[in-house]
Amino acid sequence: MTGLMNVPRAGGLLEIEGIDGLLAASFENVYYLTGFWSENFFMFPNQTQIYAIVSKQQLELAHLVCGLGEAANVYSSCGERVEPHLYGNFARAVRPDGTLDELEEFVREQVIERKPYLSVVDASSVAIEEAGLGKAKIAYDERAVFPHCIAELARRLKTAEFVPGWELFRRIRAVKTQEEQRRLTAALRLNERAIVAAMRLARVGVSEKEMVDEYERVVDEGGGRTTFAHIYFGRRGAVGYLRDHGARLEAEDIVRFDVGCRLEGYHSDIARNFCLQEPSPRARSIYRALLEGEEAAAAALRPGETASKVFEAGVRAVREAGLVDFSRHHVGHAIGLELYDLPILAPTDETLIESGMVFEVETPYYELGFAGLQPEDTVLVTDRGAEFLTSISRAFQVGAP
Amino acid sequence: MTGLMNVPRAGGLLEIEGIDGLLAASFENVYYLTGFWSENFFMFPNQTQIYAIVSKQQLELAHLVCGLGEAANVYSSCGERVEPHLYGNFARAVRPDGTLDELEEFVREQVIERKPYLSVVDASSVAIEEAGLGKAKIAYDERAVFPHCIAELARRLKTAEFVPGWELFRRIRAVKTQEEQRRLTAALRLNERAIVAAMRLARVGVSEKEMVDEYERVVDEGGGRTTFAHIYFGRRGAVGYLRDHGARLEAEDIVRFDVGCRLEGYHSDIARNFCLQEPSPRARSIYRALLEGEEAAAAALRPGETASKVFEAGVRAVREAGLVDFSRHHVGHAIGLELYDLPILAPTDETLIESGMVFEVETPYYELGFAGLQPEDTVLVTDRGAEFLTSISRAFQVGAP
Repeated sequence: MTGLMNVPRAGGLLEIEGIDGLLAASFENVYYLTGFWSENFFMFPNQTQIYAIVSKQQLELAHLVCGLGEAANVYSSCGERVEPHLYGNFARAVRPDGTLDELEEFVREQVIERKPYLSVVDASSVAIEEAGLGKAKIAYDERAVFPHCIAELARRLKTAEFVPGWELFRRIRAVKTQEEQRRLTAALRLNERAIVAAMRLARVGVSEKEMVDEYERVVDEGGGRTTFAHIYFGRRGAVGYLRDHGARLEAEDIVRFDVGCRLEGYHSDIARNFCLQEPSPRARSIYRALLEGEEAAAAALRPGETASKVFEAGVRAVREAGLVDFSRHHVGHAIGLELYDLPILAPTDETLIESGMVFEVETPYYELGFAGLQPEDTVLVTDRGAEFLTSISRAFQVGAP
Repeated sequence: MTGLMNVPRAGGLLEIEGIDGLLAASFENVYYLTGFWSENFFMFPNQTQIYAIVSKQQLELAHLVCGLGEAANVYSSCGERVEPHLYGNFARAVRPDGTLDELEEFVREQVIERKPYLSVVDASSVAIEEAGLGKAKIAYDERAVFPHCIAELARRLKTAEFVPGWELFRRIRAVKTQEEQRRLTAALRLNERAIVAAMRLARVGVSEKEMVDEYERVVDEGGGRTTFAHIYFGRRGAVGYLRDHGARLEAEDIVRFDVGCRLEGYHSDIARNFCLQEPSPRARSIYRALLEGEEAAAAALRPGETASKVFEAGVRAVREAGLVDFSRHHVGHAIGLELYDLPILAPTDETLIESGMVFEVETPYYELGFAGLQPEDTVLVTDRGAEFLTSISRAFQVGAP
């Protein structure tokens, strides 16, 4: 597999910004540029340095800098468009009397035959030169590159210029390719299945923990990973994240699901409410107003609109539908390799909406002492406007499904 | 719950290094100083800024800087020794006709009543002053603080001096308290249970994936999280991490388990081999040599010894036991809140071993075309020497348990 990059978009943005090349270092950005998935990012979040380097002149060829222990992983997950540069040391031997298959031969050649680079800086200095970026302006992932590594790179490559690029990576990733849309939809379907399975457990006396476990079980079974399972009963749904899930369901509790999972690197994050019995007229009426806001925000998600205008449309619609004091800091966020991609549907975000962006649109209302009411759905922006990708009903659910 | 810090050790190291205070920013270091567990570290690994600030003068009082969305979590996970400073905005309402409980009252006061700080820099500037560190030398977590935040902090607090402290945090955490030893042992027991459960599935034709799933299921059931499940059959055990787990077991395959889980923040990482039938005499003899090395390394783990000497003892013993070409880059690593804590039992690590350190000792041998053989065990250093904490047999296992 090669990378997931929207190459024309990346090229266009680099041109506009006057950037010659990219140095990625977070899981998301390395995976985006190369298709290389290293578990080390999760096992050693503050000890891993894996870089992907690309030049604007040749965006589809990536130089990958990683540890020697990853040789087999490089072989099996990178195609010909990735040029590996392995560093460090890792002892392996070769069976004296056997023949090696292709994968083993690759590992032997990389780990035993070849003299590896001593450090990530040694390897990436060479990779930068080979990418033709020795005298270029390189945007780097400043939140993932270790400070001493970038300082040392800059010291060695005096003719190159390194500028912070974390934000630029996010702008490049903001419009999703077909493959990314497919993955986001697959993650969403898994999320929906797990929500419905967890809701099915609902009965008086069930614990939040039992529903969380069921949610996680279905996500695991589907090959995904739970990123968060905020399932809270009644007024606990209004206070924010709580580590314990000890509450037991009562008949009148409004249950809040705000849950997320990740599949093939891509996130899903949607929310639903339900109650075993018919909720109070006030809850019904608030929920109706929130849905109106969500619909209005989705309707405003048209190419050329700004994120802040979408925010205003969503908040205004909730207020007009009767929840006059409704206040909110955002009504949604893009989703992708990060749980919050750019843009954010917030009053300060002036990003232009583009076709191919994928959002989680939401209008949550958290009332202390009462409940958390929250519709949240996945929406794809197309040339014709927004398209809901969520397949389960957006209505307030009464009774277990 | 308060923090997990080994306060006397932290105080001693700060004294020696001439450091007046600490600014933690990684999950591990914030949790270590405060007991505060935020899921945001995992949901938003490159977008989360939560700081814990302590002064050498008062190591048991931590200032916690985090987003407003965490108010309930602050209330329920931090005791009186944590002073919160919340920033950002997060809209919540209050039920007009209801009374609030203590938790809700805290959230109301923090989120609605109080004017929050606008940014993490605003909040942490005040926290640093309140901690009495406005004119002090502060070691900060340079791999977790965003570069623009530390630059802005330094600009505002001109009389404070900020120095990189990631390494110092690791040195502080190197000796484990009783509570940390308890948690490491609990994580180990869960890891062992999951290994035995996965091994029980062994029969000709079972897939690696089925064993991985069973491992993960048992870890989940025990309240933990799988960090890695490297279960590979036969010669696949020699090449390194592979994303696919498609291989099916054959009778003569040597199975390699190198698996890890996390419980209450603390890691376990051990390895085992087994085979459905009696392995070849060569495999037996290699494994015996590796065990000798592991035992020798453990025996060398005495207070006052250097990590590099432990490395030498382990490698030498494997060679003397007959695997004369044995080569290795380390024979183990400390374990704790990070999968690899300090020190590493490697030729370049001159750290002195201390009582209370906990290690994963290992002497793996990866032979391309053959198999990966790997004993790896958890060991506690005491004044009387090393004590194996692992409870399952270290012998090469023949047949499913």
